[in-house]
Amino acid sequence: MRDMLGREDVIAIAEAQRRMVSHLVIKEPLSVSISIDRAYERVLSEDIHSPEDMPGFSRSTVDGFAVNSSDTFGATDSIPAYLTIIHEILMGEEPAFQLKKGTAAKIATGGMLPAGADAVIMLEHSQYLNAGLIEVFKPVAPGENVISASEDVKKSELIVKKGSVLRPQDIAALAGIGITAVRVYEKPKVSIIGTGDEIVPAESGRQPGQVRDMNSYSLAGFLIQYGGIPVKKGIFKDVYEEIRDVVQRALRDSDMVLITGGSSVGTKDMTAEIINSLGSPGVLFHGVALKPGKPTIGAVVDGVPVFGLPGHPAAVVVCFEIFILPILRMLTGRQEKETRDQRTIKARLARNISSSQGREEHVRVALEERDGEVWADPVLGKSGLIRTLVKADGTIVIPAQMRGIEEGESVEVKVY
Amino acid sequence: MRDMLGREDVIAIAEAQRRMVSHLVIKEPLSVSISIDRAYERVLSEDIHSPEDMPGFSRSTVDGFAVNSSDTFGATDSIPAYLTIIHEILMGEEPAFQLKKGTAAKIATGGMLPAGADAVIMLEHSQYLNAGLIEVFKPVAPGENVISASEDVKKSELIVKKGSVLRPQDIAALAGIGITAVRVYEKPKVSIIGTGDEIVPAESGRQPGQVRDMNSYSLAGFLIQYGGIPVKKGIFKDVYEEIRDVVQRALRDSDMVLITGGSSVGTKDMTAEIINSLGSPGVLFHGVALKPGKPTIGAVVDGVPVFGLPGHPAAVVVCFEIFILPILRMLTGRQEKETRDQRTIKARLARNISSSQGREEHVRVALEERDGEVWADPVLGKSGLIRTLVKADGTIVIPAQMRGIEEGESVEVKVY
Repeated sequence: MRDMLGREDVIAIAEAQRRMVSHLVIKEPLSVSISIDRAYERVLSEDIHSPEDMPGFSRSTVDGFAVNSSDTFGATDSIPAYLTIIHEILMGEEPAFQLKKGTAAKIATGGMLPAGADAVIMLEHSQYLNAGLIEVFKPVAPGENVISASEDVKKSELIVKKGSVLRPQDIAALAGIGITAVRVYEKPKVSIIGTGDEIVPAESGRQPGQVRDMNSYSLAGFLIQYGGIPVKKGIFKDVYEEIRDVVQRALRDSDMVLITGGSSVGTKDMTAEIINSLGSPGVLFHGVALKPGKPTIGAVVDGVPVFGLPGHPAAVVVCFEIFILPILRMLTGRQEKETRDQRTIKARLARNISSSQGREEHVRVALEERDGEVWADPVLGKSGLIRTLVKADGTIVIPAQMRGIEEGESVEVKVY
Repeated sequence: MRDMLGREDVIAIAEAQRRMVSHLVIKEPLSVSISIDRAYERVLSEDIHSPEDMPGFSRSTVDGFAVNSSDTFGATDSIPAYLTIIHEILMGEEPAFQLKKGTAAKIATGGMLPAGADAVIMLEHSQYLNAGLIEVFKPVAPGENVISASEDVKKSELIVKKGSVLRPQDIAALAGIGITAVRVYEKPKVSIIGTGDEIVPAESGRQPGQVRDMNSYSLAGFLIQYGGIPVKKGIFKDVYEEIRDVVQRALRDSDMVLITGGSSVGTKDMTAEIINSLGSPGVLFHGVALKPGKPTIGAVVDGVPVFGLPGHPAAVVVCFEIFILPILRMLTGRQEKETRDQRTIKARLARNISSSQGREEHVRVALEERDGEVWADPVLGKSGLIRTLVKADGTIVIPAQMRGIEEGESVEVKVY
């Protein structure tokens, strides 16, 4: 949308995201080798193939007797098969004998089948006649109750893909195939620059008219949570040279730059000017059809993503999710299924909410359980600096084309 | 359920959980003071009240002019009000003057209102006649476009509750009220004891018949993820005295004890005997109506929770979620809304799955997107040691009273 003077107004979220991505230069991050003990939640930088067949030997899946299945064919309750017990296979033991026709070996779940055995009879389907002889009442098929040597994993099979975020169960699988060190990507560094004549550090005294820095704390936390390293550059007065200087330094030593604050009109323009002065293409959008978060600036400077974020703490949370997180994921080297991240809670809306058509609205909600159902109660109020931040459990999104959602309707709550 | 000999068979999951909770002795954990920079995801051990009103001064929510609202009453496009501009209030500045009748001061979003002003006129509703005089076309009500001094937070108001897990936005709120160090609970220590004659450490060589330890890696990862400290005690052969000795030591120096392995019948009984020999009440259940995870042992020894987990890696993952996680939460001191954790993805089932009535079945699924819809495809196969662990994105639960779910039906997938 452009206004009468030809100035561009807000653009749609998808268009803003598209512009960013089309100008980014995402290089594959450097990688480092670490022990799997420390690799939880890190991003794997190599495909891991199994160095061997797994389990590597034929393994029983039940407690019973290892047999040659042909010895049991035709066995019934009235005409059982008789087998001589020649051995008890111990757990972890490699049987040093060959199972001959008409014999069986006692075996536990996980035990290794001896040569000559191709199936396991469950304890329940047999009976001791004496310590050395069993009756079998049911035939077993070849391979029954057995995992064969390469049935779980074949040698060279791809086990965990490059770009995966390593979950506890992935690390367990690596341990299972004997891989105890892996290469992972180094985490991207993201600079956080606070600006605003009224902003003071959280730990310092505060005069009337001043507010404490909050946004560097929420941004740092989200960056850590999603695999980035926050680098706090400090808080700067609204002085062109000072901010330009720190942004320039940040561009040199980090993979993404976040500038917060600049809530007044003049300051926002200054942030945009500074960004444009430092490289190309510079500012790609300045104003999006999003509430909260409308005055967001998105830019790319010589391949590096730069955001100018509104000063409002609630807007920073929404902007993180919509604009920063997708790019952070690329910078971490993740090539995850996105579906793993789309977690929501289904709830019923506790109150009508209205929304302006033409902009996507993110409404913060508190969750509460009533009569076994989860309800999402909008956390409202213009006084949204601190209280709504802590009260909200998540957000619901009202798409740009809708005018609102009615009480009692089912909504999907993104929890954060 | 008891069998013909009066031995108890499997019990329902809810009953197993109830027995554990009724015998636990959960003490409030010790706490430690740390900087908010390091407090992300830690559990707050004190209620945090605001030491002051916030924002602490009357603050403009728009760019415009601070006025005495009564000066604007009755203003219209045709009969505007005229106000003399006496000052421009700078961001972060405490205005050192009193706004008199008939005057106004330029103010930006976030600026502090001067004494005598009670509202702010938006830039759009006014017009400069000259540098010192504006016309106002619309009246403002008292308080309009202003956040009053204590409107966001009142002094002494409860901001974050004891027992909360500190999210990035909670830390930001603490920064906002000037709290830069908080007391958090120390993390609970959870011992992991591997048992099984066939189990060898992941980093050592492996002979036929042996399998590498996987479960200590998945358990350690989940414990870290949910705020515990895993203490790996090592892997022990199925020797009564050795296992009893390490379990006894673990009971002394940890808040929960997890014993994995012991997949054969005799070994499971040994684990139960060892637990019973170490204190009371001892084993509370041994066998649950759950698949996978049926042979789980739940016990409390002099107040400390102890679990004997099946050796199967997939069962360990399910047991963690159902039995260990709820107790771990208590041990961490969390008093969170549970709803925050019940995250699922809605998907359609890609294949029929059947289930035995009478036990809750947890079916691992892989998620895939087709035509804009998410589908959950069951990850099947008896060879479930390694491959299904890495292939699965989450689980769906088939309740005990159901016989299965049909292809195409909508399911909720718990992602992990």
